[in-house]
Amino acid sequence: MIQTPYLLFLGDAPDQLAAKVAQGIKDWRPEFAVGQFRMDGCKADMGLTDMTLEEAKAAGAKTLVIGVANRGGIISPAWKKVLVQALEEGFDLASGLHNLLRDEADLVAVAEATGRALHDVRVPEVDYPIANGVKRTGKRLLAVGTDCSVGKMYTALCIEKEMRERGMKADFRATGQTGILITGNGVPLDAVVADFMAGSVEYITPDADEDHWDIIEGQGSLFHVSYSGVTMALVHGGQPDALVVCHEPTREHMRGLPGYKLPSLEAVRDMATSLAQVANPDAKVIGYAINTQHMTEDEAKAYLAKVEADLGLPATDPFRFGAGKLVDALAAI
Amino acid sequence: MIQTPYLLFLGDAPDQLAAKVAQGIKDWRPEFAVGQFRMDGCKADMGLTDMTLEEAKAAGAKTLVIGVANRGGIISPAWKKVLVQALEEGFDLASGLHNLLRDEADLVAVAEATGRALHDVRVPEVDYPIANGVKRTGKRLLAVGTDCSVGKMYTALCIEKEMRERGMKADFRATGQTGILITGNGVPLDAVVADFMAGSVEYITPDADEDHWDIIEGQGSLFHVSYSGVTMALVHGGQPDALVVCHEPTREHMRGLPGYKLPSLEAVRDMATSLAQVANPDAKVIGYAINTQHMTEDEAKAYLAKVEADLGLPATDPFRFGAGKLVDALAAI
Repeated sequence: MIQTPYLLFLGDAPDQLAAKVAQGIKDWRPEFAVGQFRMDGCKADMGLTDMTLEEAKAAGAKTLVIGVANRGGIISPAWKKVLVQALEEGFDLASGLHNLLRDEADLVAVAEATGRALHDVRVPEVDYPIANGVKRTGKRLLAVGTDCSVGKMYTALCIEKEMRERGMKADFRATGQTGILITGNGVPLDAVVADFMAGSVEYITPDADEDHWDIIEGQGSLFHVSYSGVTMALVHGGQPDALVVCHEPTREHMRGLPGYKLPSLEAVRDMATSLAQVANPDAKVIGYAINTQHMTEDEAKAYLAKVEADLGLPATDPFRFGAGKLVDALAAI
Repeated sequence: MIQTPYLLFLGDAPDQLAAKVAQGIKDWRPEFAVGQFRMDGCKADMGLTDMTLEEAKAAGAKTLVIGVANRGGIISPAWKKVLVQALEEGFDLASGLHNLLRDEADLVAVAEATGRALHDVRVPEVDYPIANGVKRTGKRLLAVGTDCSVGKMYTALCIEKEMRERGMKADFRATGQTGILITGNGVPLDAVVADFMAGSVEYITPDADEDHWDIIEGQGSLFHVSYSGVTMALVHGGQPDALVVCHEPTREHMRGLPGYKLPSLEAVRDMATSLAQVANPDAKVIGYAINTQHMTEDEAKAYLAKVEADLGLPATDPFRFGAGKLVDALAAI
């Protein structure tokens, strides 16, 4: 677990897009974002107060989160002075970069000397158990996709936000590095050893109040041959009561697999339901989350209307039009 | 890859069952078993020539395989003298025990000094790629199960044996530690990091002659919530043309999951086919392998006849009655 709140490190980001981790934190956990730290030449701006390390410390920040990715995902030498200084001033560091903080000898030395933590969220920090399949209290929703990168994380975060605004008990459960940095917690599922995947999902979605919802971030797709095993572990480890099927309608083939067409929404609905009912006989699809970013507003609305007519369940782009319809369906469970 | 042939180390095995890895090698790769090494008090006997290290070396043995498991799966201090001596005399060591050879400082020191290899088959030795889903040449069969430990490895080995006896091109592809020790090759799939599971299965079943069959050892079950992700990676990474459904009819619940009933053969047939067709549109179930070890011969034959009548495909206990029926079906593909 990463200590919050954060100071967001934007470094020397060449543009706004390079700071999308910081943007995610700012968008979804603004209460965790005490301020931003920008180096000379930084072209990204979260609209937060620019702070020195000292100012952020005084404002209560506990962890400096690397909210920027440069080409190659490495820890830039240009950042080192700030990172070392942050450790010395009492911050933990957190990073989702491909190169690990723990592999940087200078950072390790200072972290050890100062007793601070280095969080590489690409690497599991817990010895997860093997899944036991025992039914847990509370309710769970899982976002499943026709493909990878169709908006499962955003869908889950939108649903959590809408539920909290309605006073419902809901916690987003991160299963990927960006989600972990946003919430300070979760499992980097794609880096877990095979035998412990489902157990790690059980671990992050424990017994809870009967009216509490875990909103579980999905990964991969049951129809994506590279990553379907990861998705399967979510479907069985998550014991979802409710499934939301996520889709991006303009995609021409499965991500990274030119020979593979996307499955239909019906195929994903049926397969995910059938598999989820092994762990939870009440599991059902409650709606569709369509990523319409490449469609005009009229196109998007027409597409959503058609999905609702064809499939008989609510369909929305939760990021563009809100998650209200999906949360209405959850509130009825 | 483990260098063959082997000297089978039976150590101080308290009974025959404790040496089941050695038994598997003797049964399925007798050509790899040059001899056996037994310590004082050993109660197991593979019926092989008892050899000293020197004799085995002279007979061509390259690797001393620990073919015995003691309680707790540890490397017994009582074995150490022999293991060290084996390294000194030019043997590699191979082990599937829970405790690793590489964690024993004395063995590591001697292996380094002598340039010998320590193979812990529980740990992947390859940096596997992410699966690319590209259709490979040659044919593949995958054993899928209603549950864990229903006889998938034995089924695959029986099929390989029958195919080879008929002059067909077939290679058993091991995906678990016992299978790896038997054949000297394979992937310990349950120990692979999630993202690389399907890629590791592609890696061990590469392009081959059009009339060559990979006979892929299954793991877990699509219906076993603890391990289904591992099974899924086999179904998608393996691109099977043919599936054999394996089952043990007397089991009362899923292994390790008291609350979970076994799925029907029909459910496994339909789910496995549907998922396998994502990676290979021609995939189909060609028969059933029933583990009848807890049934009388009459009971077993009646059960198999009923499966054939109900499901319209060949059913056999390949270990008890031979794999001929299943290989007939494969030969027709």
